[in-house]
Amino acid sequence: MRRMTVDSERGPYEVIAEAGAVTRLGAVVDEEGVERPRSVVSDTTVGPLWGEPAARSLGSVLIELDDGEVHKRWSSVENVLAHWLDGGLHRGDSVLAVGGGVITDTVGFAAAIFLRGVSWVAVPTTLLAMVDAAVGGKTGINLEQGKNLAGAFWPPRLVVIDVETLATLPERELRAGMAEVVKTAWIGDRELLKLIRLEWPADQSSQRAVAWEEIVMRCLTVKARVVSDDEREVGKRAALNLGHTLGHALEAATGYRHFLHGEAVAWGLLAAARLGRRHGLLGADGEGAIAAAVSALQPLPAIAGIDADAVRAHIGLDKKKDHAGVRWVLPTDDGVALDQRVPADEVVEVFRELKELSIS
Amino acid sequence: MRRMTVDSERGPYEVIAEAGAVTRLGAVVDEEGVERPRSVVSDTTVGPLWGEPAARSLGSVLIELDDGEVHKRWSSVENVLAHWLDGGLHRGDSVLAVGGGVITDTVGFAAAIFLRGVSWVAVPTTLLAMVDAAVGGKTGINLEQGKNLAGAFWPPRLVVIDVETLATLPERELRAGMAEVVKTAWIGDRELLKLIRLEWPADQSSQRAVAWEEIVMRCLTVKARVVSDDEREVGKRAALNLGHTLGHALEAATGYRHFLHGEAVAWGLLAAARLGRRHGLLGADGEGAIAAAVSALQPLPAIAGIDADAVRAHIGLDKKKDHAGVRWVLPTDDGVALDQRVPADEVVEVFRELKELSIS
Repeated sequence: MRRMTVDSERGPYEVIAEAGAVTRLGAVVDEEGVERPRSVVSDTTVGPLWGEPAARSLGSVLIELDDGEVHKRWSSVENVLAHWLDGGLHRGDSVLAVGGGVITDTVGFAAAIFLRGVSWVAVPTTLLAMVDAAVGGKTGINLEQGKNLAGAFWPPRLVVIDVETLATLPERELRAGMAEVVKTAWIGDRELLKLIRLEWPADQSSQRAVAWEEIVMRCLTVKARVVSDDEREVGKRAALNLGHTLGHALEAATGYRHFLHGEAVAWGLLAAARLGRRHGLLGADGEGAIAAAVSALQPLPAIAGIDADAVRAHIGLDKKKDHAGVRWVLPTDDGVALDQRVPADEVVEVFRELKELSIS
Repeated sequence: MRRMTVDSERGPYEVIAEAGAVTRLGAVVDEEGVERPRSVVSDTTVGPLWGEPAARSLGSVLIELDDGEVHKRWSSVENVLAHWLDGGLHRGDSVLAVGGGVITDTVGFAAAIFLRGVSWVAVPTTLLAMVDAAVGGKTGINLEQGKNLAGAFWPPRLVVIDVETLATLPERELRAGMAEVVKTAWIGDRELLKLIRLEWPADQSSQRAVAWEEIVMRCLTVKARVVSDDEREVGKRAALNLGHTLGHALEAATGYRHFLHGEAVAWGLLAAARLGRRHGLLGADGEGAIAAAVSALQPLPAIAGIDADAVRAHIGLDKKKDHAGVRWVLPTDDGVALDQRVPADEVVEVFRELKELSIS
């Protein structure tokens, strides 16, 4: 078992990684001194695989939400709140989310607002949720106007990572999650980048669990360092948005149907590397290193059919903007540069370069 | 002008009381060093009276929500969030709520979750909102299952109280608000109880504004003291629920159509006084003092037609409960006693006594 402590404005919490933990969650929360969650929330895909053993181990009721990003919305939150009220949950109770980022974001948000806030435990079952969504305190839902527009900073009381759940994750989702690993490695752990290249594509045998735990916990170490310095994203936390400005625009421009989030981020990393080079922040070696790491995640959904003007429009709606415009994070030779201004025309130019590349 | 500072876990904020402040809000926020709110939200009743001058003074857009407790729900929040997104508001912007408790609760909650939290200014225009809803950081909406079941602790950045707005408040609402004043006085400022009895029913002339400012600020001094000790209501903040356990049940049992909140609390105070006496916490003088203060708020809507079993059922659903049952706050000779357990049969007995009284 590996563990780390993450600081938050609501106090520190533990992240533990232990193969098989999902099937012995009751014992795990007891050992951690956390009150037993009275409700387990998952989705219709993960529920039968991991929600059921989790609920059984805790002696709790299982709620299954419809699966998919489109259900990360108020009606799902309302549904969860109604179940909790029907179940007689009160302020002192805690709840648990088992699933990918959609589930941890939605259930974390429901926990944040239920009776003005109850404690929750996160059990991420996708690589993306393990290295990103479940740690850092961001919860939320999508509105008609865009992703994550309503939410709260509401850190979990405990995060339990069981890399055995990755065995049931579709290969495509695992690859997409690796884009966040590459991003995190570039921000704060270049050695991890070497480890990834050794492990991926990797021998999926006996050493697998250990390798994944190592990768996940090293990503979380970087994320926790960034987040604890700046929980509410007034400054340095923005580093985590590396690759996300174009990534979000690509997702939005294709109605969230063409890319998995990590796949869009992978394209976003390639664009950010080119922009970093253009702005004199990143040398040729750095750009090459990012390109090589992303290449290992192929195949990615093509961008050839995406209209550059749609991308331009969606970047203009980015959440990370102020009155002076969108703030980009660009890679440098030894990390990232925040608050970079990139003219829309330059973004479109780089986007067109990437389209050319992906056609050839 | 009077002012006070309220502590909160998100930092201290100022409450200022100044007659005429609503019509010069632009100058007021500038003087307080608060960023100018870019959006003013009110309802269709208060909007034309006080929302328009507020928005004009700030040079902001005015949004009017449908008036009434029934609109304290997600669709109103969604409506406000959509306006803010359309208006291009970003994380660094602030917003302002002008109205009664429904507006400050709803808009405060919308501010709490918009882009995971933006700053807001509260301008309460009812006595109830001035002495209670606008200070303390509780925001939220009702769900189908009950009141304030979804929400957040999200204190305003500034509270501006303009007692001139009470001039347009219906007499019935003013009386209802006085029930919270009586409650607050009993908890922590018995001298205020004397002031109320001198002022109410009062000469509504030249001294009026000064008297109201005195009453409001003294209530807030008590509330701020209680809240700063226990912002998230794990302990002493519960004192503020004096009169509210039966009050909430009366509102719920009559579908929120029969009582104004303060009127139900007035009945709740009478019941709590009787229960305090029965439990040996409160002497005859104390019970008499509470009864006299509440009597001054007559006429109250009758309780004669309300079924005792419905009241019993709704008390069982109270939000302030744990696995051992509902926790009552009961008055004592020198304050309140928290975490009191009252058998349901005794509640019904006292409720029947009050029904008898109200018939005679």
